[in-house]
Amino acid sequence: MADEKKLVEAITSMEEDFAQWYTDVVKKAELIDYSNVKGCMVIKPAGYAIWELIQRQLDDMFKQTGVENVYMPMFIPESLLEKEKEHVEGFAPEVAWVTHGGLEPLQERMCVRPTSETLFCDFYANDIQSYRDLPKLYNQWCSVVRWEKTTRPFLRSREFLWQEGHTAHATAQEAEARTEQMLNVYADFCEKVLSIPVVKGRKTDKEKFAGAEATYTIEALMHDGKALQSGTSHNFGDGFARAFEIQYADKDNQLKYVHQTSWGMSTRIIGAIIMVHGDNSGLVLPPRVAPTQIMIIPIQQKKEGVLEKAAELKERLGAFRVKVDDSDKSPGWKFSEQEMRGIPIRVEIGPKDIEANQCVIVRRDTREKMIVSLDELEIQVQKILDTIQADMLKRAQDHLAGHTYSAVTTVDFEKTLAEKPGFVKAMWCGDAACEEAIKEKYGATSRCMPFEQEHLSDTCVCCGKPAKTLVYWGKAY
Amino acid sequence: MADEKKLVEAITSMEEDFAQWYTDVVKKAELIDYSNVKGCMVIKPAGYAIWELIQRQLDDMFKQTGVENVYMPMFIPESLLEKEKEHVEGFAPEVAWVTHGGLEPLQERMCVRPTSETLFCDFYANDIQSYRDLPKLYNQWCSVVRWEKTTRPFLRSREFLWQEGHTAHATAQEAEARTEQMLNVYADFCEKVLSIPVVKGRKTDKEKFAGAEATYTIEALMHDGKALQSGTSHNFGDGFARAFEIQYADKDNQLKYVHQTSWGMSTRIIGAIIMVHGDNSGLVLPPRVAPTQIMIIPIQQKKEGVLEKAAELKERLGAFRVKVDDSDKSPGWKFSEQEMRGIPIRVEIGPKDIEANQCVIVRRDTREKMIVSLDELEIQVQKILDTIQADMLKRAQDHLAGHTYSAVTTVDFEKTLAEKPGFVKAMWCGDAACEEAIKEKYGATSRCMPFEQEHLSDTCVCCGKPAKTLVYWGKAY
Repeated sequence: MADEKKLVEAITSMEEDFAQWYTDVVKKAELIDYSNVKGCMVIKPAGYAIWELIQRQLDDMFKQTGVENVYMPMFIPESLLEKEKEHVEGFAPEVAWVTHGGLEPLQERMCVRPTSETLFCDFYANDIQSYRDLPKLYNQWCSVVRWEKTTRPFLRSREFLWQEGHTAHATAQEAEARTEQMLNVYADFCEKVLSIPVVKGRKTDKEKFAGAEATYTIEALMHDGKALQSGTSHNFGDGFARAFEIQYADKDNQLKYVHQTSWGMSTRIIGAIIMVHGDNSGLVLPPRVAPTQIMIIPIQQKKEGVLEKAAELKERLGAFRVKVDDSDKSPGWKFSEQEMRGIPIRVEIGPKDIEANQCVIVRRDTREKMIVSLDELEIQVQKILDTIQADMLKRAQDHLAGHTYSAVTTVDFEKTLAEKPGFVKAMWCGDAACEEAIKEKYGATSRCMPFEQEHLSDTCVCCGKPAKTLVYWGKAY
Repeated sequence: MADEKKLVEAITSMEEDFAQWYTDVVKKAELIDYSNVKGCMVIKPAGYAIWELIQRQLDDMFKQTGVENVYMPMFIPESLLEKEKEHVEGFAPEVAWVTHGGLEPLQERMCVRPTSETLFCDFYANDIQSYRDLPKLYNQWCSVVRWEKTTRPFLRSREFLWQEGHTAHATAQEAEARTEQMLNVYADFCEKVLSIPVVKGRKTDKEKFAGAEATYTIEALMHDGKALQSGTSHNFGDGFARAFEIQYADKDNQLKYVHQTSWGMSTRIIGAIIMVHGDNSGLVLPPRVAPTQIMIIPIQQKKEGVLEKAAELKERLGAFRVKVDDSDKSPGWKFSEQEMRGIPIRVEIGPKDIEANQCVIVRRDTREKMIVSLDELEIQVQKILDTIQADMLKRAQDHLAGHTYSAVTTVDFEKTLAEKPGFVKAMWCGDAACEEAIKEKYGATSRCMPFEQEHLSDTCVCCGKPAKTLVYWGKAY
């Protein structure tokens, strides 16, 4: 028991210190480890397996919309990065520079990609000649580097893994449709695969991507009421095309500029999974991204037939991601470990269960215990996994709805931001000065101008001038 | 017809100029493109899709042996790279150095990983405490950078994609067993998935990996008789463990050094697929790594019912990777394209075929034409794909056997190397000076000391002193 206590005690409770709870879970669930390379993390097997499940399912969704995967170089020559003015201003201050190759200095220094718009543009400028070459719907899975000063596991690190889609289209309409389509793919993915509900909207000019005409975002709400930008989709119009001279001959043989988009989701989303679903016993994983969905734990495993039965159940559950913990630890310790790692279902099987032709199934999310006849094992397990997946979404939706507030007056707005962690919906005049003032005064940023607009009042919650748009405000990771 | 001729004419024949043929195929089959980042390539959808199929199948084989995937940082601080003496000497001359992060110079420069032994060792030094933590069987899929002076698509580029496995074991025996096991995984993968036979053996000290005790290799023979090192597996003994202080407490509570291995296969293997199987019409892909396995080409597609029938066949063949080419190009052009891209099976379907309830199936590898009843379509297609996969291996095996020679005397050896492209088996005294001399005189290197040893004579083919080992010699990529 002493050992078991130690494992659980090692986590700070989220009510006491949410940031510390997060770090504890990340370490204790063995998702990542710090490395001696400052600001970079080691993604351990339990963490990487989640990323692989994310990759495979998101990639399938991309491919269903016609997207193809490619791979671009990881280096960007300085002159290439500088071609689009806003873009270089946004990224140059935070890139890593390679200055030497082998024993010799480079003629031109190169940065490690912080994002690959410039490389795709450079490629498209040669590869696209005619309207027959369009659309280009390319994506790549890779790592990128941004020289962050302060870092946090998954949420902000100098190197992170992501996918970046880059498309080129004949018309502005097509580019806009693709930008929205991919945002919807992200939102669907979050809801259906990760059980995370999101708010969809457009970023203000201040918050949009460097070089984009419009940035769309999905914003999720963490358990502590802070927002996490979880995926973005950008419409570049023909801005990059003009900077990189990406033109095609249309059917009428006129040279025209292409219209482009890009969209990305990163390992950051694993941070969202932790902070939306986790509890004081550790990680809680949605079944669809749980590397192990079922842990079978034999009780009194030295008794005759118990380990054999556990192995038999594992065999029968082969359609799922299932393991048996037959180590020499105590059952209680094994329960704690299974809970810490967020494994959705625990199956307990002991001599008495075997005699009664049953097992005990415990849900990780609710801790509900069920006695299940072994005759119905496969069917019940599937049902319970589906229920967990759906219930986790429902709970997260309730949390989002219960922590989204409306504020009409400045006093109201200030009070809500100060006292109620969550999103605050309020009207905005459209002026960046008000955004700046709100950030400075309350530490809150505009998360998005939601697609589902409401009219709360006629005046900006900050300056009192006529309001243009409803904005979701919040404190963010 | 003019267009069709153009497509085919654009390839140099392999008999005329093998190197140019290779480059032509790579470009025309749209596998890669050169980029404006010197020495780096863009892997296009047709090339990346092959890599994805390689990844998925090789990764499954790794996981079946207990391997787990992780992700390590892409940067290596200089002091870390320098910890193992032979290793740094081998790699330091060919790495890319990052000297600035954001706007500031780094306190210590870092290289972009050329391989990640040092990072894994650094991690293991903290992560491994007890015999209970062993073995560690980790792998990562990533890109690495080596500052090559001359580059060729897939075969040698400054950045390439690969996997690198890194394991740590309690004993020397276990490490040796894992080194051999992974070499066998590579050899099996090449034979079963890529239809490429390989020679398995050990590298000489001169050719082994920087820092390894022993390097095992699989060597494949290209169509032009040159060798390609296709995968390597290294046993490090406890050399890295001593340099990095990776110790564990054994059951008897004694501190002991771990024994380590590493093993890798890269995008280079795509070069092997091209050069083992390709012909003068382009790429020939083994069905198991063909992104498209079947191309259905409608004949007289404007006639009523043809496109509908083609779509129906595609639907019926949904268990395979199948496409319909219903573009407005001529059938002949479509045939050329399908051949250029190496798609294993072409299904032709026109009005007469429909009337006769049949289709024409053409094998890419042999160009054999078969009339197949539509009633048997799925079964026949599966059969033909299996046959292609097996026949391609058989032909490659015959080519390997037919281009492997034995030489007993120096004169024989010289003559064979000069006149007969392929492997030359010959005895060697074990002295690096002879290897050096052979390389200088004939441009041939020791490919490996094969596991299947033979005794051809008592004396070294170079110096005439007593021979120790049989070596496969060859000119290599």
